[in-house]
Amino acid sequence: MKVCKFGGTSVASAQQIKKVASIIQADPARRIVVVSAPGKRFSGDTKVTDLLIRLATAALSGEPVQHALQSVIDRYAEIADELGLERDIIDIIRADLSSRLRADPGQHDLYIDSIKAAGEDNSAKLIAAYFTSIGLTAEYVNPAKGGLFVNEPPDRAQALPESYELLSALADKPVITVFPGFFGYTKGGMLRTFDRGGSDITGSILAAAVKAELYENFTDVDCVFAANPQVVENPVEIEQMTYREMRELSYAGFAVLHDEALMPVFRASVPLCIRNTNNPSAPGTMIVAERSSSSRPVTGISADSGFSTLYVSKYLMNREVGFGRKLLQILEDEEISYEHIPSGIDNLSVILRSHQLDTEKEARIVERVKRELQADDVHIRNDFSMIVLVGEGMNNHKGLTARASAAFARTDVNIEMINQGSSEVSLVFGILKADEEKILNELYQEFFAPALIR
Amino acid sequence: MKVCKFGGTSVASAQQIKKVASIIQADPARRIVVVSAPGKRFSGDTKVTDLLIRLATAALSGEPVQHALQSVIDRYAEIADELGLERDIIDIIRADLSSRLRADPGQHDLYIDSIKAAGEDNSAKLIAAYFTSIGLTAEYVNPAKGGLFVNEPPDRAQALPESYELLSALADKPVITVFPGFFGYTKGGMLRTFDRGGSDITGSILAAAVKAELYENFTDVDCVFAANPQVVENPVEIEQMTYREMRELSYAGFAVLHDEALMPVFRASVPLCIRNTNNPSAPGTMIVAERSSSSRPVTGISADSGFSTLYVSKYLMNREVGFGRKLLQILEDEEISYEHIPSGIDNLSVILRSHQLDTEKEARIVERVKRELQADDVHIRNDFSMIVLVGEGMNNHKGLTARASAAFARTDVNIEMINQGSSEVSLVFGILKADEEKILNELYQEFFAPALIR
Repeated sequence: MKVCKFGGTSVASAQQIKKVASIIQADPARRIVVVSAPGKRFSGDTKVTDLLIRLATAALSGEPVQHALQSVIDRYAEIADELGLERDIIDIIRADLSSRLRADPGQHDLYIDSIKAAGEDNSAKLIAAYFTSIGLTAEYVNPAKGGLFVNEPPDRAQALPESYELLSALADKPVITVFPGFFGYTKGGMLRTFDRGGSDITGSILAAAVKAELYENFTDVDCVFAANPQVVENPVEIEQMTYREMRELSYAGFAVLHDEALMPVFRASVPLCIRNTNNPSAPGTMIVAERSSSSRPVTGISADSGFSTLYVSKYLMNREVGFGRKLLQILEDEEISYEHIPSGIDNLSVILRSHQLDTEKEARIVERVKRELQADDVHIRNDFSMIVLVGEGMNNHKGLTARASAAFARTDVNIEMINQGSSEVSLVFGILKADEEKILNELYQEFFAPALIR
Repeated sequence: MKVCKFGGTSVASAQQIKKVASIIQADPARRIVVVSAPGKRFSGDTKVTDLLIRLATAALSGEPVQHALQSVIDRYAEIADELGLERDIIDIIRADLSSRLRADPGQHDLYIDSIKAAGEDNSAKLIAAYFTSIGLTAEYVNPAKGGLFVNEPPDRAQALPESYELLSALADKPVITVFPGFFGYTKGGMLRTFDRGGSDITGSILAAAVKAELYENFTDVDCVFAANPQVVENPVEIEQMTYREMRELSYAGFAVLHDEALMPVFRASVPLCIRNTNNPSAPGTMIVAERSSSSRPVTGISADSGFSTLYVSKYLMNREVGFGRKLLQILEDEEISYEHIPSGIDNLSVILRSHQLDTEKEARIVERVKRELQADDVHIRNDFSMIVLVGEGMNNHKGLTARASAAFARTDVNIEMINQGSSEVSLVFGILKADEEKILNELYQEFFAPALIR
């Protein structure tokens, strides 16, 4: 059994949904289909989810909702018409949205969540109706009925362990299940959405629950590339990589799949395939627990900007038991998580994501570190990027650091930070953001370009 | 004015003390002399300090002390005789030791401290007497009289800030001051010794207090070498380096001067010179705040063994605010300080000095990290070494990391850890201890050997 997830662009129009149906028909093992809300059909188009946010905002501010409501219904109606469906599916969607709008808006967040989730929920109802209309035995399954239960607020929504047992029953259904992505319910019946990588998470949970042979994640790209194709010209396609490699790549800039969506299939050892709805014959990128070895030590190179460095120096710092712990406590008090802590003898730097900082926080942190830790020098610098070389078995290739740092030397890009030593599958370089494109291209040439002079 | 400190081998015999006197006579700026206890005269000899520890141990266990006491007096008497001094100096030393032995042994540590310090104290009295006998105007100054006051136990002994003001009066004395190293007194009159780098610390405090033009630290080597001469054949001599360079080198294996002894002169910007009592015409190694630039990016390469790694991995670790802080808290509860924390995405390693661990502590730490932090994998590995490349302005030499890692690749030595990014003057590599000599030689060749084929 395979679980297939289709993203927003894959279900954005009747034409796209027909592709989805063809994909399902092409392989009888594709028994569970997780769908997103209709996404953009063209550049500049508005996603249904954004139309729904407008609708919820209008309702909450007491404005008339008719116009915003109609724009949502129109999107579904256009798809339904082109698919040749009866208009009763639109009546169902209209009734569903009206019912959500009438709910108690006491807790604004939950009210907005409920209306946003209508995008996926009605997408699943419509697609199930279409599947049935073309002769596929398909059934829409609501997450509450299927058993996708989540924890209570205020912690971010995560599937409860018991959900996996409940959802495993989907494996026994004699029909194709069409399941909306992006949300679940608390045991008390409250709808909650997954905050990041929504529908990917639902697909991953279902694939883990039914112990699928494969989780196919259909997007609008053929595969994962070894480097960002917007920076590197014609990067090679990654045919196969491990969960760890995907996770390390997604950490710094590879937005293909959010790491939280990787966890359920990783824990259940279900292989995952990134595929293209628009080119289903392309083999895609397989993500597996263990892969066959490759001649290349590096599988992919990611780059991500938006990092800052908190630098702290104090003479004889390394004699003070507790110095690092107290420093991290100050960051924790400001609810800041950090990425790396390179350290010298009398100094250390904390590398963190800049979005967690603002001018006031920076001033408070610098002041507290100076006062409470009596540091000699404390300052924060912004505009750093991280470049991450990722590859299983990287530490068997002893010359890898030499090759990477030679690439830095050739481009005259300064290495602000190196972090090697804990992960066996990645090597992290900190650089100035301004150098990002230059070094990404040079590293790509070093590790992926066919050997010419070298 | 110059402050000169003479180590144990420099005052081990009459012959050596004559060299000390010649050095003082050679430069009228040498007005303050700090001395150690007589050290070893030859391999296999016993230092006076060790004789005194035997004496204290005997006294504390209620055994007869006569034999141990006589062996101490004999050492001083032999020196005094060869220097042609009157026997009254030996009477003074004998009375001093007897008085210390009669003290209340209530607090064993302080009793032992007092007897150990007799080594330096009587060395200073004897050398002052010798200086006077050859026509130098010299005076022994006791630390209590001079103003070298230290803090109360249980914190390790450190000079009180007011000591610097009090000791500055030594600058105005019209005689050569001979001052015993290694100890000071609390305001209540209790003698306390400096635990590491004893006499070097005293010299540094005095040099800072009198704002000396130079602190000359006389030892038995001509200079500091760029790498350990027991591993690298004929390493180059370091003519000049900065405090920061010395400190980073002493961190990992350069035992020339303990970092605590560097602090007072560093804070007061007094330059320091490492010189050889047995070869006073050699220029030695100058340690200064800022040095003239050199063509070499690396000033010295140190290597030190005895490191362990605590490895911790947990899926989605970097999402947990507080993970690192809680881990460091567990180490702090075990009174363990750490050196570096290289980190991957879902894992981190804490590198620490192995002497802080034992089997029980290791088991407790691993168990607590697993249980309290719910880590997926936790283990401790031993037998690591740190190799540190040190050089001011190192980060202006962009190809340095490339050269160093190419040296690793040539020797097939695996880089277990790299730490670059906080200190501007050092680059730290973690390796297996077994690889230490091989890579130290290769790195020395890379950065110090004259270019031949390269």
